[in-house]
Amino acid sequence: VMGSRLEDYHENDLADVLPLLTVPERCKLYRILDTDMLSDIFEYAESDNVAEYLEEMDVKKAASILSKMETDALAEVLQKLDKAKKKLLIELLDPEVRHDIEMIASFDEDEIGSRMTTNCIIIREDLNVKQAMSSLIDQAAKNDNISTIFVVNAQQKFYGAIDLKNLIIARRDETLEDLTVTSYPYVYAEEPINECIEELKDYSEDSIPVLDNDNRLLGVITSSNIIDLVDDEMGEDYAMFAGLTAEEDLKEPLKDSMKKRLPWLIILLGLGMLVSSVVGIFEQVVTTLPIIMTFQSLILDMAGNVGTQSLAVTIRVLMDESLTGKQKLQLVFKEMRIGFCNGLLLGVLSFAVIGLFIFLFKGKTMMFAFSVSACIGIALLLAMLISSAVGTCIPLFFKKIHIDPAVASGPLITTVNDLVAVVTFYGLSWLFLIEMLHLAG
Amino acid sequence: VMGSRLEDYHENDLADVLPLLTVPERCKLYRILDTDMLSDIFEYAESDNVAEYLEEMDVKKAASILSKMETDALAEVLQKLDKAKKKLLIELLDPEVRHDIEMIASFDEDEIGSRMTTNCIIIREDLNVKQAMSSLIDQAAKNDNISTIFVVNAQQKFYGAIDLKNLIIARRDETLEDLTVTSYPYVYAEEPINECIEELKDYSEDSIPVLDNDNRLLGVITSSNIIDLVDDEMGEDYAMFAGLTAEEDLKEPLKDSMKKRLPWLIILLGLGMLVSSVVGIFEQVVTTLPIIMTFQSLILDMAGNVGTQSLAVTIRVLMDESLTGKQKLQLVFKEMRIGFCNGLLLGVLSFAVIGLFIFLFKGKTMMFAFSVSACIGIALLLAMLISSAVGTCIPLFFKKIHIDPAVASGPLITTVNDLVAVVTFYGLSWLFLIEMLHLAG
Ligand SMILES: [Mg+2]
Ligand SMILES: [Mg+2]
Ligand SMILES: [Mg+2]
Ligand SMILES: [Mg+2]
Ligand SMILES: [Mg+2]
Ligand SMILES: [Mg+2]
Ligand SMILES: [Mg+2]
Ligand SMILES: [Mg+2]
Ligand SMILES: [Mg+2]
Ligand SMILES: [Mg+2]
Ligand SMILES: [Mg+2]
Ligand SMILES: [Mg+2]
Ligand SMILES: [Mg+2]
Repeated sequence: VMGSRLEDYHENDLADVLPLLTVPERCKLYRILDTDMLSDIFEYAESDNVAEYLEEMDVKKAASILSKMETDALAEVLQKLDKAKKKLLIELLDPEVRHDIEMIASFDEDEIGSRMTTNCIIIREDLNVKQAMSSLIDQAAKNDNISTIFVVNAQQKFYGAIDLKNLIIARRDETLEDLTVTSYPYVYAEEPINECIEELKDYSEDSIPVLDNDNRLLGVITSSNIIDLVDDEMGEDYAMFAGLTAEEDLKEPLKDSMKKRLPWLIILLGLGMLVSSVVGIFEQVVTTLPIIMTFQSLILDMAGNVGTQSLAVTIRVLMDESLTGKQKLQLVFKEMRIGFCNGLLLGVLSFAVIGLFIFLFKGKTMMFAFSVSACIGIALLLAMLISSAVGTCIPLFFKKIHIDPAVASGPLITTVNDLVAVVTFYGLSWLFLIEMLHLAG
Repeated sequence: VMGSRLEDYHENDLADVLPLLTVPERCKLYRILDTDMLSDIFEYAESDNVAEYLEEMDVKKAASILSKMETDALAEVLQKLDKAKKKLLIELLDPEVRHDIEMIASFDEDEIGSRMTTNCIIIREDLNVKQAMSSLIDQAAKNDNISTIFVVNAQQKFYGAIDLKNLIIARRDETLEDLTVTSYPYVYAEEPINECIEELKDYSEDSIPVLDNDNRLLGVITSSNIIDLVDDEMGEDYAMFAGLTAEEDLKEPLKDSMKKRLPWLIILLGLGMLVSSVVGIFEQVVTTLPIIMTFQSLILDMAGNVGTQSLAVTIRVLMDESLTGKQKLQLVFKEMRIGFCNGLLLGVLSFAVIGLFIFLFKGKTMMFAFSVSACIGIALLLAMLISSAVGTCIPLFFKKIHIDPAVASGPLITTVNDLVAVVTFYGLSWLFLIEMLHLAG
């Protein structure tokens, strides 16, 4: 009675409740619910929790639940088990499932094959509608992604796909030929995830077949796999953009967090020291005209900000793999034009505001105040123009040498642009204010 | 003949070919292909292109293609048409479709209702399996999201969902009651997208029903809608993180790009001027000890970098709507602990490297060099500690006052942390180096 009432709940909600129960309460649930339901619940649960739950039950029951789980969730759980238990459970798994798991595990984690599931319906091309339907019903007990049916030939090579809807409304004695879309999209298992993700998204199908290099059908990427992939890929880019080497969550141990952040920080500290030593070259300018140094942080920050904006736009644009060289050049010009226009506006604004500020609050002559602020305004314009070019060219360069452009983080661009801004600002000040106008004080 | 060969291609691939054809070639295609196929192709095409294609054909044909399109794609296309054409086409639309479009358009663009589709199968709870199956086949001609069937009661209120797989393998005279999952997840049409997106992702279902406030079923969010939502939401957060007000693409006109970037740049310029005027307070420190000023950019940048890392982690963690106050406090402590540990490491590193650098290359005494570098190391540690707290607390604060925490961009945090770093660095230098050790030069 209890079991059937529980079956009215969604597996995801039951998965959320499990960790809140005591061990005896959970053990009662394992008895009440059937392995189908339990396998579905475990697919939604956190994999480290599932590893615990499996310890709480008979090893044979554990193996039969695991055998019914989606292969990707199963693979994650197996990783969380201790070695002995893992070996034992793998031996007890359904042989077909064991084969699937091993096949999926054989792909590199950045290859699309590592993210596929074998949960799909596969039929031979020479069946008629009635035979196809009964093959579907046979397979549906084990595989519940039924909305697209994949057709293979006698050599197991991928032939096409049938929309279940069309199969349902077809005449029973029809051949499958007319129902089959033969140029259905597919990916090869060894394709890198970041190279095929845009394509997978584009087709917006429920499942897209994954083939080996001989065009044999190995499994599918489902739309919920794609959601996870998009989430992971963008989360990774987002993290890299902020100068983290990978995503982090709330429960992350201190050591792991430090490991994710230190590499970038050490590189940035090194670059920062370089910037400092370049600033050191201009010590003479600062001793002659200390007020100039007050505005250093303004120029450096604005250069960094503009570079970060250009970087973000460039990384997103570069996700499109089909970009031509001409389009890339256009992008650089577009960014520089925006940098110039924004720089002109902000440069004029700074000239007026900073000039007034120095004149009113620093007790300097009008001439002195506006000479200094003109120099700041021009330096700002130049720094913003060059920084937008830098923020665009660095990711383009990384892409060119086959490094993920997302490694060019905001902090990196900011620090590189510090160099640009320091040279521009102090160089201009020295030339214009000290050499030409002979200002001091 | 040509038509049936073309039907072997995927609609997405045909959509990619259309813009490469000449107008007469396209017109030929419109004649060859049926409206079903054309509507599918147009769903995949860019909406501004579709607006053009519709001009190239008879208005009645255009209306019948539009009537068969997925409501979300249709709504996008209508926006791209000029006013007169739009009005004309809307009048010619299938009345049911017109009603759906108006209903979807009635929701705000950040409400989930604006992103749903009415493409779903809906049956009454009092049918048996055979009746349900034939109702499904009737509706399938118009609605092709068939893998989940939604069950409503006599008042059209949402009752539950049936997995098509279970319907197919059920006995024909069974009632639907046993097949229906009555606590199937759902969302209300007026829920804000960013508050329900995590939940929608979590359930990983093909479609999740959207209800009005009286629990009547209005439509569904499909997994391909969820992919778009995740992409849009994360793309928006990504853009905001970089100091853009929205995402940009390659073809963006200059004016639009400037509009997206200037607001943040002006705010940041204002904040930058504030930082500069605070630096101005410490002009005395710089004139007494110019070498200190050389390392200003280093401290400011590192504070900014650490703050950006904490910000990125916090924004991602805050996506989880169910966070308790205690967990938020934990996050602040976690971030400060990481800031402290990383700061300690980098502080010691800076003390050693910078001390040596000043001693060897600036011709100062060992005592002078290492006093200055000790001051830099301590300032670095303090600035990193406080900056990680700032990078965590600012988004937490925004969340508290119901502003999207993603508006706290990296450049904003960097500039706010400049203030922290300036006060720490020059304050410490003044106290420690000038007041206590009486260093100068
Ligand atoms: Mg969950
Ligand atoms: Mg299952
Ligand atoms: Mg998964
Ligand atoms: Mg299988
Ligand atoms: Mg299709
Ligand atoms: Mg990537
Ligand atoms: Mg900077
Ligand atoms: Mg396309
Ligand atoms: Mg359609
Ligand atoms: Mg409809
Ligand atoms: Mg389910
Ligand atoms: Mg958001
Ligand atoms: Mg800065």
